[in-house]
Amino acid sequence: MPASTIQLKSRVLIGAVATLAGPKESQGPLKKHFNKALRDDLLGLTSYELAESKIHESAIRYLLNKTNYMPQDIDLCIAGDLTDELYATNFAMRTLEIPFVGSFGACATYGAAIALAARIIDASVFKQRIICSVSSHFSTAERQFRFPLELGTQRTPLAQWTVTGAGAMLINKTEGRIRIESVTFGRVVDWGVKDANNMGGAMAPAAMNTMIRHFKDTRRQPRYYDLIITGDLGHTGALLLKQLMYERSYDLDQTNYTDCGVLIFDRETQKVEQGGSGPACSALVFNAYVYKKLLEGSIGRVLLVTTGALISKTSCLQKQSIPAIAHAVSFERI
Amino acid sequence: MPASTIQLKSRVLIGAVATLAGPKESQGPLKKHFNKALRDDLLGLTSYELAESKIHESAIRYLLNKTNYMPQDIDLCIAGDLTDELYATNFAMRTLEIPFVGSFGACATYGAAIALAARIIDASVFKQRIICSVSSHFSTAERQFRFPLELGTQRTPLAQWTVTGAGAMLINKTEGRIRIESVTFGRVVDWGVKDANNMGGAMAPAAMNTMIRHFKDTRRQPRYYDLIITGDLGHTGALLLKQLMYERSYDLDQTNYTDCGVLIFDRETQKVEQGGSGPACSALVFNAYVYKKLLEGSIGRVLLVTTGALISKTSCLQKQSIPAIAHAVSFERI
Repeated sequence: MPASTIQLKSRVLIGAVATLAGPKESQGPLKKHFNKALRDDLLGLTSYELAESKIHESAIRYLLNKTNYMPQDIDLCIAGDLTDELYATNFAMRTLEIPFVGSFGACATYGAAIALAARIIDASVFKQRIICSVSSHFSTAERQFRFPLELGTQRTPLAQWTVTGAGAMLINKTEGRIRIESVTFGRVVDWGVKDANNMGGAMAPAAMNTMIRHFKDTRRQPRYYDLIITGDLGHTGALLLKQLMYERSYDLDQTNYTDCGVLIFDRETQKVEQGGSGPACSALVFNAYVYKKLLEGSIGRVLLVTTGALISKTSCLQKQSIPAIAHAVSFERI
Repeated sequence: MPASTIQLKSRVLIGAVATLAGPKESQGPLKKHFNKALRDDLLGLTSYELAESKIHESAIRYLLNKTNYMPQDIDLCIAGDLTDELYATNFAMRTLEIPFVGSFGACATYGAAIALAARIIDASVFKQRIICSVSSHFSTAERQFRFPLELGTQRTPLAQWTVTGAGAMLINKTEGRIRIESVTFGRVVDWGVKDANNMGGAMAPAAMNTMIRHFKDTRRQPRYYDLIITGDLGHTGALLLKQLMYERSYDLDQTNYTDCGVLIFDRETQKVEQGGSGPACSALVFNAYVYKKLLEGSIGRVLLVTTGALISKTSCLQKQSIPAIAHAVSFERI
């Protein structure tokens, strides 16, 4: 049986990252770390989808500016978001002349894109560069997956708050001090959770599945990593993951384990119930916070496990359970 | 500027293909060529989405049976479909323990998946294997993108008929007689078409963009290929592409050029207006028909250009134009 974790053969490096955070995210605990904080989440446009698209595009443009690359210098962009048919991403890519493949993996998209890009760059000549980018927007997600915003529906205790923002990463072979060491693609796992407001519960088994495969394939213990960070399980989902892992003899309490959904908002003051979600959640927290800690050297090895609840409103209305997926990427300071 | 076409360094081979075709597709001109023909497109299930999911899963299982591989022998599946949040694909992957990344590129998904897989396998050790698979279903697409089926809405002259079915391809380094020689990822192109029933018109400029980049990068003329086949431009879209290419000094009339959407149905008797569409359109036609011709040796070099109209019902309702994309993959008999 092939190992499901691939260790990269060459140095695949993070060239640079960019983050654009929405108004609520910019008031949270990580407010100092974002490249750009938006004051208005509609940006004067006529729809939230167009606003999300603009945010996505701006994150990529910010990354290009930062690195002094032109769109023509980029070989491929692997990108996605939560909107149906990737409305936000596709429209963002209209204005950028970059070859593009759309990826959908719900909130796990960032990890999937990085893992694909890393494997392609591993095989590439030196000048090749791939951008991975994701976006999400509270107002596009809420009305797509749940209720019209105008209804003012009461949120349930297990709900999460979709992060507004976008994150982008340049992956290349020549520049950077953080390398992508290995990747573990996720499998779809479905333990029968049917509550569309309990995404943490749906995703925790998928995170466990990917993490355990990663640890077994690499013969590592969780403590190998200075930080293990899941995408957006939220407070209760993260507890559930710890419990599931503990039952299988992996004690995350003995490690520096946390969750992007937990970190991005202040639960006490920001009324987000379980924390943040959306593809931008892990992208903002990784790019703005974890990457910075890696660069500073306060941590050296990180396992990012982005998690996605593969929920559709159609499958929900048809009373189906929620499949979930998680992709793991191991980063190392060099 | 990096060339946007990547020529693979090693032998990346099609190990096998599988096709499942819906009832209407199985009565069309290619009826003899499909692995399995469905008599019922609901398969006794409670929704068309679940039926599409089953069709997608069955195509992958058929491919596994054909090749005597177990799901554990496959390193990654890159797969997608048209349903919101990839309902059909995600649910298909629940039952297969294969690491999985979802891709959304509308009807261009098959080419995107093959191009990604080919680049990853190019870099891989010999035992690695990737499956690319796509599905579509007339009844899930029609009600998602247009009107409830029960309305019996009259179809417009430029409309296309979404193909019901699924196709899967195993890509590897060890087995096969057809190699993937080069890939050209598409860019999003939007010339302002707003008619959701004129997808051929929206996609033709994207096909042109990718084709011309492919020809320039490889310094080839269209006649280098024994067959150039676009995804699903349909009859008028294919004419439009020929016109656009002719204006730029590429004469497709001097080549063996056709379109999967044109081939899959008989326009005279099957009432499909412009022809077939949907990710399964190019997958069924390539896997069942073109691949067979390559194996037989009646053609030696093929350029497949899958085309996608990146339309969402939200963007349509918001009166936005339709972005489109096309990905090119060059196949060679070895």
